[in-house]
Amino acid sequence: MGVSGSGKSTIGKLLSQKTQFPFFDGDDFHPEANRQKMATGQPLNDDDRKGWLLALNELARKQLGSGSCIIACSALKETYRVLLQKGMASQIKFVFLRGSYEQVLARMEAREGHFMPASLLTSQFDTLEPPEDAIIADITKKPEQIVSEIMETLSKKTEFGLIGLGVMGKSLCRNLAHHGFRISMYNRHAPGQEEHIATDFKNEFPELREALPFDDLQAFVNSLQAPRKIMLMVPAGKPTDLLLEELLPLLSENDVVIEGGNSHYTDTRKRGELLSVHGILFVGCGVSGGEEGALNGPSLMPGGEKSAYRIVRPFLEAIAAKDGNREPCCAYIGPEGSGHFVKMVHNGIEYAEMQLLAEVYHIFAKTGRSPDQTADILGSWKAEENSFLLEITVDILRTREDDHWLIDRILDKAGNKGTGNWTTIAAAELGIPATMIASSLFARYISAFKDDREIMEATYGQASETSHIDKKTVFEAYRAARLVNHYQGFRLLREASAIHGWDLNLSELARIWTNGCIIRSSLMEKLPAILRSGDHMLLHPETVTSLKAWKPSLSKLVSACVESAVPVPVFSEAINFFNGFSSAHLPANLIQAQRDYFGAHTYRRNDDGGEKIHHTNWKKTKGS
Amino acid sequence: MGVSGSGKSTIGKLLSQKTQFPFFDGDDFHPEANRQKMATGQPLNDDDRKGWLLALNELARKQLGSGSCIIACSALKETYRVLLQKGMASQIKFVFLRGSYEQVLARMEAREGHFMPASLLTSQFDTLEPPEDAIIADITKKPEQIVSEIMETLSKKTEFGLIGLGVMGKSLCRNLAHHGFRISMYNRHAPGQEEHIATDFKNEFPELREALPFDDLQAFVNSLQAPRKIMLMVPAGKPTDLLLEELLPLLSENDVVIEGGNSHYTDTRKRGELLSVHGILFVGCGVSGGEEGALNGPSLMPGGEKSAYRIVRPFLEAIAAKDGNREPCCAYIGPEGSGHFVKMVHNGIEYAEMQLLAEVYHIFAKTGRSPDQTADILGSWKAEENSFLLEITVDILRTREDDHWLIDRILDKAGNKGTGNWTTIAAAELGIPATMIASSLFARYISAFKDDREIMEATYGQASETSHIDKKTVFEAYRAARLVNHYQGFRLLREASAIHGWDLNLSELARIWTNGCIIRSSLMEKLPAILRSGDHMLLHPETVTSLKAWKPSLSKLVSACVESAVPVPVFSEAINFFNGFSSAHLPANLIQAQRDYFGAHTYRRNDDGGEKIHHTNWKKTKGS
Repeated sequence: MGVSGSGKSTIGKLLSQKTQFPFFDGDDFHPEANRQKMATGQPLNDDDRKGWLLALNELARKQLGSGSCIIACSALKETYRVLLQKGMASQIKFVFLRGSYEQVLARMEAREGHFMPASLLTSQFDTLEPPEDAIIADITKKPEQIVSEIMETLSKKTEFGLIGLGVMGKSLCRNLAHHGFRISMYNRHAPGQEEHIATDFKNEFPELREALPFDDLQAFVNSLQAPRKIMLMVPAGKPTDLLLEELLPLLSENDVVIEGGNSHYTDTRKRGELLSVHGILFVGCGVSGGEEGALNGPSLMPGGEKSAYRIVRPFLEAIAAKDGNREPCCAYIGPEGSGHFVKMVHNGIEYAEMQLLAEVYHIFAKTGRSPDQTADILGSWKAEENSFLLEITVDILRTREDDHWLIDRILDKAGNKGTGNWTTIAAAELGIPATMIASSLFARYISAFKDDREIMEATYGQASETSHIDKKTVFEAYRAARLVNHYQGFRLLREASAIHGWDLNLSELARIWTNGCIIRSSLMEKLPAILRSGDHMLLHPETVTSLKAWKPSLSKLVSACVESAVPVPVFSEAINFFNGFSSAHLPANLIQAQRDYFGAHTYRRNDDGGEKIHHTNWKKTKGS
Repeated sequence: MGVSGSGKSTIGKLLSQKTQFPFFDGDDFHPEANRQKMATGQPLNDDDRKGWLLALNELARKQLGSGSCIIACSALKETYRVLLQKGMASQIKFVFLRGSYEQVLARMEAREGHFMPASLLTSQFDTLEPPEDAIIADITKKPEQIVSEIMETLSKKTEFGLIGLGVMGKSLCRNLAHHGFRISMYNRHAPGQEEHIATDFKNEFPELREALPFDDLQAFVNSLQAPRKIMLMVPAGKPTDLLLEELLPLLSENDVVIEGGNSHYTDTRKRGELLSVHGILFVGCGVSGGEEGALNGPSLMPGGEKSAYRIVRPFLEAIAAKDGNREPCCAYIGPEGSGHFVKMVHNGIEYAEMQLLAEVYHIFAKTGRSPDQTADILGSWKAEENSFLLEITVDILRTREDDHWLIDRILDKAGNKGTGNWTTIAAAELGIPATMIASSLFARYISAFKDDREIMEATYGQASETSHIDKKTVFEAYRAARLVNHYQGFRLLREASAIHGWDLNLSELARIWTNGCIIRSSLMEKLPAILRSGDHMLLHPETVTSLKAWKPSLSKLVSACVESAVPVPVFSEAINFFNGFSSAHLPANLIQAQRDYFGAHTYRRNDDGGEKIHHTNWKKTKGS
């Protein structure tokens, strides 16, 4: 690519001789109308070009079927290049022949028989958007040298680097390799603990035969094409900071670092600011889907500078899961730490979804069902209310070890890695009642107090098996509670977006969560349309109908469980939130009066528009 | 005070001439046994001294009844001085006659007729603990000069300064003045907004006739006796930092700053570190009780360096509320920001207590009771379950405006000033399920969404009046829920103490919350004893008996309210916490299995002691 006269045909033909890939001159694929227009000195417009670019895209696809090819095409704008590489971004490499106006003009004036008048060169330079991720060749060099430099880069340097070969890092490497990217992989060398990790990993999987393994960070960085694109998959917190400290001096301006750990969004913002001082671009990218998602297609939530995202977009979109319309489950989220914030809330929603299933399992156990019987019931829910978490719950409940269900042998103390905690804190900070997420977090905390629980049960007695709670009640309650949970999560995102000025697209977030991630579900598939129609999910006609139908079951379930001493903290928060949130009148007037009584905090009234603040000397008026 | 031979009698007599207060030589009040012991060259021990010191204390008390007096007494140890000023700390001023061993020895050797041999001087200097808060006189100066300096200090400089004359600051000033302290009071000058605040305030209240008013910070600081004792009562956050910045250059080493705002405990820790660099002592002091408490006796929670607390203790203990045994509701809490942490949790408990009463009020309203009828019921609870918040709720519900109950005209959107929020965040961070506090916070947040609530009610319909819920059920549920709330709050304190190494005394905390503060109650009065017997409140026999009796009502209440669509989020958290916390088996095993399934997070087993971690390849074993 490059402006007319930059030497595309010359270099392309030479490259073709060296590589044995056929060469095509893009100009030969111009419709006749375009050629005439150019000959009369009129510049082409974007409409003129679209059919041409798609023709070239098709040409390239065809050639890829049997090997590869070299195409000369000016490709001046980013939008043209997006069209050219449509559907095969990971297999395209642009070579930009770069020269100044004067250099190109001199070359053109010396040339004969070309149908494009030199007078059009100005418009070409005006149009040119230099590519951010291309091999750059200096046209003042000799063609042979240019070609040999291109060959060197193409054959030796890799396109994408990944640091940290844990469970997630390894899966992403294999995913990148599956999509045809040439990658470099680095894992630190820790004597006696982590040795030859990258090399052993490469040797384990045939798809990594082209990948370069490293345990030397400098060599890893040197192996990457500029601008470098490096994804970090190391534990969040201190390890990430230490690695960035080590990496920073090795990087060059315009390199892009993608941080894919579960980092706190405020850390991501700070890191982005730090790196930008050095001219390094930073993308804080939420990655969901666990090991399997990372391997076969995760849901990706990249945030940061949009220009940084543009550079790494072909890689991220290629490896992401695809939604029902084959669009990647990856979209630019917003600036700063918004990608990690969104991932954090995703995990918060996940906490509540998991806890709801745990409560369902507990209820069925308390009504005398075996894990298999519960699995049968949950399996029957899939047709109407499927989700990844429901599916794995069914798998788990059916899993046996010798003559026992494995689930019965697992210790009932839940762990947590911080994101549910962070979401609860963010909700408290932003003033959003994400009660189900908070309650799920606290349910895990309660589970951790196993010793207390045992002595408490010994003291207060065990809850007896409950009277029968019918399956339909549980199912409808579960469906209603899920709606409330999703509402709370998206409401938290909406508030964060407003406060931080992130301009989050909630509908798009729901879309990229329809596949690849842990909270993908049939409900999530309905949400992009619902959220597109307005951001108040609970007022959408479809939701209203559902909730009206299911709410009695939610009430009934919670009421029955409370009476039977079966703890259902998150189901309870669902119904109490709904009851509070749909009460035009709440007893918060008493709280305001109390605050005014003891602390002179003042209150507002409901009979003067609530505009003014009031204070009452309650002691004096007492008994009046 | 001072060692033998430092000139106590000389200076005391001169002072007596100047002031017309009678002079007493402490040595005249020694029992004969002590005098003989000293004459034979044996040093007195602390037992010897106790009766003597108490005799002097009684002498001083008697004299204070009719004016004042001057007493010469060595008072070498801090414990002696505590005995001497027992019950009248704010009215005692120590003058320390300070000299070196050599200076005093020279004076003693020149003296005749004194019954104490010079050989005892060494033991006196070994015993001497120089006072931290006394007027210090240099014995090398001439007696007349010493006396005139003491007079100057006593007559001009004040003992205690207070900055920030808002509602709380003003009340504390009046409280200090009531206790006989001479104080300086400062409020900034903000043209057009805050002008002559301190002067106007002084003129408004006769008890402030001795107080010095300032709107110039330098003059305020200069008016205080060294080491200065300055209490800040300005809004937490930025205003406090700005003030400290302005104040710091005006202070001297060993001055003590008491910060009494609702500061976040991490800010308090940082401020303490900053000030200690400059040799300034810092006390982060929780203050509870609202305007009335501040005036008549608040509950005080001072944290920081213990040496700093010792200096300001006479002031804080004098103005604090008194518990049932007439002990001050003020105790040294612990280092760093522990005082403000404890205050924060106090407020968290308060949030849940207020919300419980709001839910009770809502339930009674939904069962058709007028505010007066509800007040009647709540009033009848006082005999068995009284609390400050219950009392003010009764007052509030009875308050009328014209022909209406005022409560009905108050807008039902609850405000919050941060501490409930912070407590929820601290609970999330520390891994403690303080579910009732969190839920109270979120209930306030929900109340703030008035617009949403109105449109939700219009969409989903209003909850109808409930069937009758009997008073006894509500009362017992309320009592049970309060126990759970207090357990959660104290558990959070216990965990914070362990993690931060604060060594908090939970029983003592409960004691200082029995009066002066917002959460004082008959329940709180039982807690010092319960917590002294062990820190697991829910396992104390008295609690077990109560909870067993009341729990059925708590279940019944929540169940009935959920069925009737009356939101009871905090009552629900109480019963769900209890049910979960007293379940030896919880469904957290499923959560662990899910986490292992999608994220390879591993799990522990219940059949191998839980020591080892395990991982299952669930997909492979699925269906096996």
